[in-house]
Amino acid sequence: MYSNILCAVDISQEGEQILSRAASLAASFNCELSVVHIIEYTFLPKDYQKQLMEDVQPRIAELGEKYGISKKHRHIKFGQSYSEICELQERLCVDLIVIGSHGKHGFNMLLGSTANGVLQKAKCDVLLVKVDGLRS
Amino acid sequence: MYSNILCAVDISQEGEQILSRAASLAASFNCELSVVHIIEYTFLPKDYQKQLMEDVQPRIAELGEKYGISKKHRHIKFGQSYSEICELQERLCVDLIVIGSHGKHGFNMLLGSTANGVLQKAKCDVLLVKVDGLRS
Repeated sequence: MYSNILCAVDISQEGEQILSRAASLAASFNCELSVVHIIEYTFLPKDYQKQLMEDVQPRIAELGEKYGISKKHRHIKFGQSYSEICELQERLCVDLIVIGSHGKHGFNMLLGSTANGVLQKAKCDVLLVKVDGLRS
Repeated sequence: MYSNILCAVDISQEGEQILSRAASLAASFNCELSVVHIIEYTFLPKDYQKQLMEDVQPRIAELGEKYGISKKHRHIKFGQSYSEICELQERLCVDLIVIGSHGKHGFNMLLGSTANGVLQKAKCDVLLVKVDGLRS
């Protein structure tokens, strides 16, 4: 079915819900799972970037441990979210991207930001996970 | 994982590719699978609507037989695609909608039509299946 899933998360509780869904899928398909978190700041001083990276690393490590994602499959990137996600998708030969949505009344709030960009550019299947609403 | 999948298809070969993916998912999760085809004509004379319905029924029946979808899980609707898909999603308590995308360079061509509407309104997870490109 799928052999290589990439899940994009933020470090909130919602991020974990999405990763949990991706991990269940990866288990169902017995396939690889990578996780990526993108820090959306590109023109910050190097020291501040380093600080942001250090702030986020423990949470990604914690999520990685919890969902059995090895260190080499954990990614933290700086840049534009959708662009980094799609770059990673191609580089890792990912065949399913899992991303989240927010909002209780459909995907409105997310479309127009990261999800919209990923959907526009993705060269593989994309699963949009609903965080609130029917399945929450 | 998922218990009730709804796959929206057209009657082209691409529609079958998408349904094939949805059927694999349904088999993986041992869950229900429904299929819907929407005829996007609402103000046509009744006779012409009947004709359109009769034209499409054999193909949906054929797809249903091929992918083990019982008659009660095969739907043909008239109306606006995304609106009918989302109405059916709520009525059938579907927790995953599977729809297709076209275009070799991302989802550009589809977003803005049916997929865009579904993504905006869906109250469950949505899988966009890439027909061309990486996975074709």
